[in-house]
Amino acid sequence: MKKRINIIKNLNQIDGEILEKDIIIGRNAVTEALKAGRSINRLLIAEGSRDGSIQKLITLAKERQIIFESVSRDRLDKIAENQRHQGVVAYSAPVEYSTLEEILQVAWDRKEPPFILLLDELEDPHNFGAILRTADAVGVHGVLIPKRRSVSLNSTVAKTSAGAVEYVKVAQINNVVQTLKQLKELNFTIIGSDVDDIDLFDEINYIDFSEPIVLIIGNEGKGMRRLTKENCDFLIRIPMVGKINSLNASVAAAVLMYEVFRQRDILKKSY
Amino acid sequence: MKKRINIIKNLNQIDGEILEKDIIIGRNAVTEALKAGRSINRLLIAEGSRDGSIQKLITLAKERQIIFESVSRDRLDKIAENQRHQGVVAYSAPVEYSTLEEILQVAWDRKEPPFILLLDELEDPHNFGAILRTADAVGVHGVLIPKRRSVSLNSTVAKTSAGAVEYVKVAQINNVVQTLKQLKELNFTIIGSDVDDIDLFDEINYIDFSEPIVLIIGNEGKGMRRLTKENCDFLIRIPMVGKINSLNASVAAAVLMYEVFRQRDILKKSY
Repeated sequence: MKKRINIIKNLNQIDGEILEKDIIIGRNAVTEALKAGRSINRLLIAEGSRDGSIQKLITLAKERQIIFESVSRDRLDKIAENQRHQGVVAYSAPVEYSTLEEILQVAWDRKEPPFILLLDELEDPHNFGAILRTADAVGVHGVLIPKRRSVSLNSTVAKTSAGAVEYVKVAQINNVVQTLKQLKELNFTIIGSDVDDIDLFDEINYIDFSEPIVLIIGNEGKGMRRLTKENCDFLIRIPMVGKINSLNASVAAAVLMYEVFRQRDILKKSY
Repeated sequence: MKKRINIIKNLNQIDGEILEKDIIIGRNAVTEALKAGRSINRLLIAEGSRDGSIQKLITLAKERQIIFESVSRDRLDKIAENQRHQGVVAYSAPVEYSTLEEILQVAWDRKEPPFILLLDELEDPHNFGAILRTADAVGVHGVLIPKRRSVSLNSTVAKTSAGAVEYVKVAQINNVVQTLKQLKELNFTIIGSDVDDIDLFDEINYIDFSEPIVLIIGNEGKGMRRLTKENCDFLIRIPMVGKINSLNASVAAAVLMYEVFRQRDILKKSY
């Protein structure tokens, strides 16, 4: 236990990012984790390490569509502390990732029009955890996150989610725009949110909430990317009348999720 | 700077609570701060210290309705580290507290029916900060917090509020029930929230949002206190359909604040 805490402290000093606690160290351990199908958030391989067993490991990762990052040996040394890492370290997720198909199946099983959340390059695991908690409360069927440049499922997310991580399915996607196009073909209405868009309270009347819905939450600082935005059917802005006029990302996500939930509740009661 | 960080670390080890950075140490410094009218969150006095100058200091604090706590000399030693505290340490707030009257004046100046938030023993400064941020966005005129057993305005709150602490007035109140009775005489509608109350989506139709409103947010774990609850005109529950069904306190507050904001927006547009 003491050791684990030390590792975390050191990591914190290395790159300042919030940490994933489940570290798998060394070629054999990582190879076995890959073979066993464990969910891997990040795979770090030492620069220049490309010999036989590393190549096999990379092939295995590619088959499972896991992206690896080349990092310096020095950084791996620090992450692994005194343990022999042999040029390989992986971070595993505390729960297994789902697939988009499994998320759609949840909606199908519940006989509800799908309600999916897509986090476009969200960064903060505390925000991700709080969003999962709200997603559970409003009956979101699943959450999509990009594989690259996005927060992943880690221990901080699990903790902040207050257990919701066990119930709300999360799937990693390779490409946001491709996924949105795929969902459009399945009749999804794609709703994006940004500060300079149309007032939620007005725009909301034009959306048909009986249709399947994807709600997109952008990055904490930069919002949604341009290409993501271009693929939205509706762009909405949360109305604000104050002096600061910026909401915490998990608060903004909650206001939007509750609006979809409320609109569907009205629909249900009107039947 | 180094020293300040050490003090904070030590404090953290002492009582595990999140810390207020602005510490005033020693009889003269604290007396001057009291005379200058600086906002004081907590005043700690060593047990048994009741001689002349301490008595004067206590009288001064009482005049300003600042409550003091008796703590062990050992604890004061740790808080003040190597500095001579002479039995007195105070924590000051990063911004000045307002009064209920000043908050009502804000609503009056904006020609809006008052919208006040009351935090009933909220504990976490991060939640308080996030709530202030949302309060700014929805145009809340001010926030009331009890003097005892409540989070106070500190540096963590200021930081998490993303600057909203400068614009949203916060007033400390001595007694929640007394304040609620006072507000009732001013025609306020008092809305409380709790998990086992009536569905927000249903109950909301019975509330007249053109009246002045106090919205009460309870403690993170225990919710509102019984006496607070008994003084509410409406008790509402945020609807949830998930498996965990608990929201982060700042998320719950945001959903409720946005509902009031939305209802008032509908009213405004119907004129």
